[in-house]
Amino acid sequence: MITLDDVRAAARRLRDRIHRTPVITCRSFDEATGYSVFFKCENLQRAGSFKIRGALNKLLLLSESERARGVVAFSSGNHAQGVALAARMVGSSAVIVMPSDAPRLKLAATRGYGAEVVFYDRQTEDREAIARRLVAESGRALVPPYDDPAIMAGQGTAALELMEDVPVLDALLTPVGGGGLMAGCSTAVKAVDRATRLFGVEAETANDTWLSLQKGERVAIPPPPTIADGIRNLSPGELTFPILQKNLEGILLISDEDIVGALRFLLLRAKLLVEPTGAVSAAAVLAGTLPLPRGSRVGVILSGGNVDPAILAGFLKES
Amino acid sequence: MITLDDVRAAARRLRDRIHRTPVITCRSFDEATGYSVFFKCENLQRAGSFKIRGALNKLLLLSESERARGVVAFSSGNHAQGVALAARMVGSSAVIVMPSDAPRLKLAATRGYGAEVVFYDRQTEDREAIARRLVAESGRALVPPYDDPAIMAGQGTAALELMEDVPVLDALLTPVGGGGLMAGCSTAVKAVDRATRLFGVEAETANDTWLSLQKGERVAIPPPPTIADGIRNLSPGELTFPILQKNLEGILLISDEDIVGALRFLLLRAKLLVEPTGAVSAAAVLAGTLPLPRGSRVGVILSGGNVDPAILAGFLKES
Repeated sequence: MITLDDVRAAARRLRDRIHRTPVITCRSFDEATGYSVFFKCENLQRAGSFKIRGALNKLLLLSESERARGVVAFSSGNHAQGVALAARMVGSSAVIVMPSDAPRLKLAATRGYGAEVVFYDRQTEDREAIARRLVAESGRALVPPYDDPAIMAGQGTAALELMEDVPVLDALLTPVGGGGLMAGCSTAVKAVDRATRLFGVEAETANDTWLSLQKGERVAIPPPPTIADGIRNLSPGELTFPILQKNLEGILLISDEDIVGALRFLLLRAKLLVEPTGAVSAAAVLAGTLPLPRGSRVGVILSGGNVDPAILAGFLKES
Repeated sequence: MITLDDVRAAARRLRDRIHRTPVITCRSFDEATGYSVFFKCENLQRAGSFKIRGALNKLLLLSESERARGVVAFSSGNHAQGVALAARMVGSSAVIVMPSDAPRLKLAATRGYGAEVVFYDRQTEDREAIARRLVAESGRALVPPYDDPAIMAGQGTAALELMEDVPVLDALLTPVGGGGLMAGCSTAVKAVDRATRLFGVEAETANDTWLSLQKGERVAIPPPPTIADGIRNLSPGELTFPILQKNLEGILLISDEDIVGALRFLLLRAKLLVEPTGAVSAAAVLAGTLPLPRGSRVGVILSGGNVDPAILAGFLKES
């Protein structure tokens, strides 16, 4: 378990190293939903998502000799870029384990931050085993994507900043993949204002946390096909799940169509580029799934903005 | 001529009625250019551009009986939406004169703010004559797009806010169409800090102000083909030009290719949607046209974000 103090300590560590992202409101979004919505723009964060918060907090908590040996992470997404940038910022080095068919752009971005990339074959190799072997062989520290107190506390700083800018919130929504963002944010929110209700959002095909909450224990699902690639996890984390169980009002489920609709709305009306995963919380609000009265004050974390231009062009064509 | 006091008075009038837009920085833009760039995000402004500033200031300066009679404007672009929204906000009414082939989306947005739209045929009719007839017949006040002290002062509030957030700027760049934005911004900037250098930006095919500054008097150009539709003016304004002559360091000229490159960079790296006109100042910086030493602190006004999704999809395809 982590506490508000852990999140506060992370916030002090991160200050002036990463962006304090703006909170933006959009009149037409409010008119469309009937709520007063506050967007915390982690799509404008360094490396394009909230992931730098946890990664940098983790690296700053390593000893000097650990940092000198460097770190390892496995990810084909935003965590890879977050760890790569965090390592460069503290003068450490990162090895990122990526599938050999990882998107060219994400590969280039990760290498652009100075990380070494090690490929594996998704069909025949187990990335966790590879990362663990790397850890054992090189003495590098593993930076897990969510199941780690330093990662959770770092991600929670997004909610802490949002609450400083918007003191009264009736609800806060974040996407839920492994649950690191929500574990940190809900810990901070519940400690500051118990009345604020926390809703996680999952794609309806990636409903592992929804199912786990129903059953009262962590369950695994087959690989989900949702376009929200940042929340395609098969089960909630071992450390994150009990925190979500304790803090969450519930999980809201949305379709891929809802996600594309929200992404288009945010882009064309709010002028903000979010990736599909970054749009899921807004999609839950737009789709009318939020069980709150009109006029409620709702915080929405736009978690990231890294999207391939060709895929984005495709979203713009649909209407 | 307008003064800093006019801009300050406009800022007091506009406060809490429109967005105080955020100032955003982007590490990768700074790395690409060698400058420290501060983006004033008027693409996130109400109605999607800075135009609401001048329009609302103008409407708030009308007498109650003038507001009751309503206003007229001619525009197929952001000024139309700014005037329509401003009129709705103060309980007035707006008639907007638009070409019969105006983009469907801009027409819908203008009507969405409650304005009445009157069409004219671009080939056979003169829109100014139509607007003036409307003014004569209806007693409505004309809201000009730039050549009006209240409009210039309102637009200048964007620079005032930017200087409050970023006290030291070596330079400020804005797009120059009719010159209203730059007239207001340069007035405010030069009164607050004479050392800040002002650069207007034009598309190389829409270089009417560049030519006028060379010649020392207003010259007219044929209709320019640039994709930056907000700055396709044929000559600088009668009131704006002397102010630009006095305050500007110069005009920077950029190609349409530079504009698309900057739009893509801002979208994919900074995650901000700007329209082609909104990208021109950033394009001038990216293209290396700014005659300032590395490390200079540069303010850039991202003037608007209203762009058609199909056109945007086209920009994303090019690479």
